[in-house]
Amino acid sequence: MSATDEFLTANARYAESFDKGDKPMPPARQVAVVACMDARIETGRLLGLEEGDAHVIRNAGGVVTDDVIRSLAISQRLLGTREIVLIHHTDCGMLTFKDDAVKADIEADTGLRPPFALEAFADPAEDVKQSMRRIANSPFVPHKDAIRGFVYHVENGQLKEVHP
Amino acid sequence: MSATDEFLTANARYAESFDKGDKPMPPARQVAVVACMDARIETGRLLGLEEGDAHVIRNAGGVVTDDVIRSLAISQRLLGTREIVLIHHTDCGMLTFKDDAVKADIEADTGLRPPFALEAFADPAEDVKQSMRRIANSPFVPHKDAIRGFVYHVENGQLKEVHP
Repeated sequence: MSATDEFLTANARYAESFDKGDKPMPPARQVAVVACMDARIETGRLLGLEEGDAHVIRNAGGVVTDDVIRSLAISQRLLGTREIVLIHHTDCGMLTFKDDAVKADIEADTGLRPPFALEAFADPAEDVKQSMRRIANSPFVPHKDAIRGFVYHVENGQLKEVHP
Repeated sequence: MSATDEFLTANARYAESFDKGDKPMPPARQVAVVACMDARIETGRLLGLEEGDAHVIRNAGGVVTDDVIRSLAISQRLLGTREIVLIHHTDCGMLTFKDDAVKADIEADTGLRPPFALEAFADPAEDVKQSMRRIANSPFVPHKDAIRGFVYHVENGQLKEVHP
């Protein structure tokens, strides 16, 4: 049985007792979370999110890319969020490689060098600050007065705040 | 109290009983999920995910953008995932606007027209197929033989498969 089939079995159980079908589209707590895709980060549990509470944007690293700016622009302009929470974490995959080396590997395998940055970084807290500066520098995110950044510790479950 | 401060209170409770500090970096179930950022989508609960199980990539719409390709390339090449699960959903914010209108609004407010697509779409199932085709067309995602797409129904909690 594939993981996807296991997901469908779990979803059937979830839907059986589902009682949240009347939640509105705009996030109740008016916040957008930007976090790494890492499998150990279970955003709902570690932040205490209920269905309907917050937008959750995730990618490799939790870095603020143009696609995150797109998502934040839609989140704030069209769906009313006002706070942003950035979450990087310890033991991140992005700490284990350098862009140039992976680009060279990809080029060796495919013949094509990727036309995008891989976004590897050397320190999660420093990269949270980089992400904060990218938002500060973007004209497309209208509300910037409630942005906070954290490093999540996969070894003990704790969020630690990064002060810019 | 801000939503962010409430998250920190919830996180302190989560960390108190945390017993998952020894999970490895590669996802145990070797799958990457690509889902919309919508607040009503609680990926962990609706798929039955435990900490360590799966990469979770999310943006506005759950659309496959270049940043999702970047994340999938890292997920598969460096962290061993082999399945991809795409999740769009009913009552999505991306159904409520057109790119041109939002771009014009942003230009009116900021003086700048965004140099990226907003990625609005008219039908979630059709856009799941679009996302499948974008992955099929990308040279940077090496493993493409286990890609499945779904529309999540926010009104009843059910995933319904999209057959390409």
